[in-house]
Amino acid sequence: MYADWTGKTCRDNGFDFTLRETKREDLEDHIRAANADSLVDGIMVYYPVFDSERDRTLQFMVNMRKDVEGLSPHLIDNMYQNVRFLDPPHNTQKSILPCTPLAMIKILEYLQIYNTFLDYGKRLFGRRITVINRSEVVGRPLAALLANDGAEVYSVDVTGVQQFSRGAGLSKQQHEVVDKPGWTLENCLQQTDVVISGVPGDNFKVPTHLVRDGAVCINFSSEKVSP
Amino acid sequence: MYADWTGKTCRDNGFDFTLRETKREDLEDHIRAANADSLVDGIMVYYPVFDSERDRTLQFMVNMRKDVEGLSPHLIDNMYQNVRFLDPPHNTQKSILPCTPLAMIKILEYLQIYNTFLDYGKRLFGRRITVINRSEVVGRPLAALLANDGAEVYSVDVTGVQQFSRGAGLSKQQHEVVDKPGWTLENCLQQTDVVISGVPGDNFKVPTHLVRDGAVCINFSSEKVSP
Repeated sequence: MYADWTGKTCRDNGFDFTLRETKREDLEDHIRAANADSLVDGIMVYYPVFDSERDRTLQFMVNMRKDVEGLSPHLIDNMYQNVRFLDPPHNTQKSILPCTPLAMIKILEYLQIYNTFLDYGKRLFGRRITVINRSEVVGRPLAALLANDGAEVYSVDVTGVQQFSRGAGLSKQQHEVVDKPGWTLENCLQQTDVVISGVPGDNFKVPTHLVRDGAVCINFSSEKVSP
Repeated sequence: MYADWTGKTCRDNGFDFTLRETKREDLEDHIRAANADSLVDGIMVYYPVFDSERDRTLQFMVNMRKDVEGLSPHLIDNMYQNVRFLDPPHNTQKSILPCTPLAMIKILEYLQIYNTFLDYGKRLFGRRITVINRSEVVGRPLAALLANDGAEVYSVDVTGVQQFSRGAGLSKQQHEVVDKPGWTLENCLQQTDVVISGVPGDNFKVPTHLVRDGAVCINFSSEKVSP
């Protein structure tokens, strides 16, 4: 299903798309072959494969130059370090960002939360954003990306609140993370312009009465409603 | 001096400009004549003339259809009432806004504080703005204009703080004003994205350490520095 959509989007944009199916125990060999195949420019693995830590090992195997999902360790590392290109100082090759966090950023750009009057890389300066969920796949990289773009980000999960920020006046080149002991979701929501939530299941709902008037709200998790 | 600039700007934009000088006691007659003169499309009086309440009477005399400064009672009334056109429901003739507050709005549009993703007339929704000065000429009309465009505005002067707002979700068609007893400038600055100050003289300075990181700051008053 997801592969059908990838194929359609690739063809719509002029890319060839081939779906290769394999037994999961053979997948590593297929990734190695695709890494070496000069006819393959990009690789996308449809997860979950083993639905365990082993999937992360598969992600690490995809050649960084062909990793269209932005999950390779070096790309992830660049993202956290606010390194945006693979070839400084020429800066012709962008360091690919993880796809789901990037999708959030594209939404925020569309909604003009990014202020194009400001310099590239600082366009969230002055924005305060709450991100509920601090997973390694979406929540934490998203908080880092937004903070690297200049926002003050409150990252919230069941363990508490952390602030991701480049400091007053964006004095730091990349974001830093500090714990906010005693802070609750309520403290965050009262002063944020954007609320991004990704908590699956129906046990958690954002208390909307605490959300500021005019705040942009995005939910990136889905919930299966029982009949 | 100011008239020289008006003339230059008019000619740059393809308008004929004639400067008419007169004794101040004859000015009323000149305004009446210009109101009746079909060759005159716009009238601008260079104040102060009497530098007293009488200047306001002069403003009232300028025909609303020729009042390029937006100071006529009906235009001012429209502005406070959030009525934007002179000819509803056709809406081909804009109700002219007072020029200095309008200049602030143009600056905020340029800085993308107005979010063009939102509907016209609501583009400050979610913004919180502090206006320091509540004069009849600039501070109060400016607070009203910003609130009518969707912002939550804190209007501050020596008598205290007032909130101008169209209510939660812009439920009201025009702004309402409520007193905020006990509030200080500090309360306002801590939560506002934009600070507009217009307090002449050197006795008042905005305490910049209270201004939020990334806030847009505009000063529309000037100060003569003693040598």
